[in-house]
Amino acid sequence: MAVYTEVSPEQLNIFLQPYGLGRVLSFKGIAEGVENSNYLLQTEKSHYILTLYEKRVNEADLPFFLGLMNHLSARNIACPTAVTLPDGTAWSHLCGRPAAIFTFLNGVSLRRPNTDHCGQLGAALAGMHLAGADFSLKRENALSVDHWRDLLRASEDRADSVKAGLCDLLHEELDWLEAHWPRNLPSGVIHADLFPNNVFFMDDRFSGMIDFYFACNDLYAYDAAICMNAWCFEPDGAFNITKARRMLTAYHNARPWGQTEIDSLPILARGASMRFLLTRLYDWLNQVDGALVKPHDPLEYLSKLQFHQKVTSPKGYGVDSRVVA
Amino acid sequence: MAVYTEVSPEQLNIFLQPYGLGRVLSFKGIAEGVENSNYLLQTEKSHYILTLYEKRVNEADLPFFLGLMNHLSARNIACPTAVTLPDGTAWSHLCGRPAAIFTFLNGVSLRRPNTDHCGQLGAALAGMHLAGADFSLKRENALSVDHWRDLLRASEDRADSVKAGLCDLLHEELDWLEAHWPRNLPSGVIHADLFPNNVFFMDDRFSGMIDFYFACNDLYAYDAAICMNAWCFEPDGAFNITKARRMLTAYHNARPWGQTEIDSLPILARGASMRFLLTRLYDWLNQVDGALVKPHDPLEYLSKLQFHQKVTSPKGYGVDSRVVA
Repeated sequence: MAVYTEVSPEQLNIFLQPYGLGRVLSFKGIAEGVENSNYLLQTEKSHYILTLYEKRVNEADLPFFLGLMNHLSARNIACPTAVTLPDGTAWSHLCGRPAAIFTFLNGVSLRRPNTDHCGQLGAALAGMHLAGADFSLKRENALSVDHWRDLLRASEDRADSVKAGLCDLLHEELDWLEAHWPRNLPSGVIHADLFPNNVFFMDDRFSGMIDFYFACNDLYAYDAAICMNAWCFEPDGAFNITKARRMLTAYHNARPWGQTEIDSLPILARGASMRFLLTRLYDWLNQVDGALVKPHDPLEYLSKLQFHQKVTSPKGYGVDSRVVA
Repeated sequence: MAVYTEVSPEQLNIFLQPYGLGRVLSFKGIAEGVENSNYLLQTEKSHYILTLYEKRVNEADLPFFLGLMNHLSARNIACPTAVTLPDGTAWSHLCGRPAAIFTFLNGVSLRRPNTDHCGQLGAALAGMHLAGADFSLKRENALSVDHWRDLLRASEDRADSVKAGLCDLLHEELDWLEAHWPRNLPSGVIHADLFPNNVFFMDDRFSGMIDFYFACNDLYAYDAAICMNAWCFEPDGAFNITKARRMLTAYHNARPWGQTEIDSLPILARGASMRFLLTRLYDWLNQVDGALVKPHDPLEYLSKLQFHQKVTSPKGYGVDSRVVA
């Protein structure tokens, strides 16, 4: 949670003027998003989220991110869309940063999603994959298997300070992942960060998804593996196979899995664990004094990785060839 | 800015049930208030602020704080009021903390108020003093002159680590303030923390005041001195006598100053500087590792104190006996 950039009412008024949204009724920094500064903006016209992009979001990627949200929304995927200026541009600048105004999405994110929520998440993820299939822009996954070696290099010297033996374990795992990573599975636009805090529900019904700032082109089943890690482990670390089965089956009902996708789930889940383990490890070892955001515990993802290392078939996630029959 | 307590949707729904505010449409932590956790709550019925009181607010003081807001609002002072439960109680408990739901106040707080805003602030402060005069509850000012000696004791050993000579300077000033502090000026309920971030404007018109958690019974003119410090110094540290004159004159037009009140302004302003210097010094010397709020610079208030030490009459603030003629 964070507001990195303070926006004065004077700066806000100048920024808003060309948008034509009416008088500002309220403007409050919100504790949402770790990469950007977010404000809730109420004007005479409606409610909006104003986002200022801090340095971790590259302005060159905004056409992809904002274009994708617009593309998905036009295909009935519930997500925010950028309010455009009269000339059609979707963002401008505020306090020296790229900044965009988004439509407001009702709903709340869940701390402890249940099995039914996981099913709805699976269906929504498949819907997003289908709706994004004809999006014209491409964005490479900057945190894919091809980039894990560099990430590991940046942390390996101090990895064992977090847990004895971690450096060797990560090297062995990465060697294995690089050697076995599936390259020919169905791919397209994925969210790549669809954790429960990025999904809204209202009265226990899925009401939308937010935060597309890791979206990219990669394997669809890898996106599901990321979700499985984020949604199907209990707070005590135990894997909930019922939640995984429900999520994967609901996905299948909207976008049927191919046999090779299903069979690749164990390695994709190891990779999804590796990706978050490596970025969390890096953030843990490079904590900024006085930072507004506390880093996540990397060892949560070590534990998930070690769970998936023992899974030998998709049956470990509650699905098998019958799901694709 | 901070959200200290994370509230899950499940906890929220249980808490909200007896209030009868309809379905929750949105619930977001906001970066407002340094003492409490605040959420913006949107339900089918309206917008609200949900406040969880963290340890620095004493639950025993809530009848005073919430009762005061209700009392002022009933007398047309624009401020939030607590939504009551069917049995009339104004707060309950959430996540182990006292928690209350407040009506939403439109407007934005200004980073750089101009002279006209200072005038409006002076009028609003006087209006609040008048409206609070018949409020039945009392609350001692826990940060009044009688408590500065204890505050100084808690910091004196390390005061010189912030600035050489600070410890001696504070002792001399406190001796003088204790010896000369006026005890018989008009008093009543004061806000005691009416900084620009606690005052909302809409289209440059005063729209309300918030954050009554330092409100107490003390000298009215001391409240004005606190405001003068918070509103009438420029970012470069220069005192803006035009702003002070406008603020004090507008106050006078709503609640006329007595001659002794006006004449006491220099010492009250020194005291108001001392109070914030001492609390900021304490917070500066006792920074909590990983705290969500960065402490304010105590030396800003040393500079204000040193300005007021050179003021020999209210003419230094742009007012003199003519204002009370």
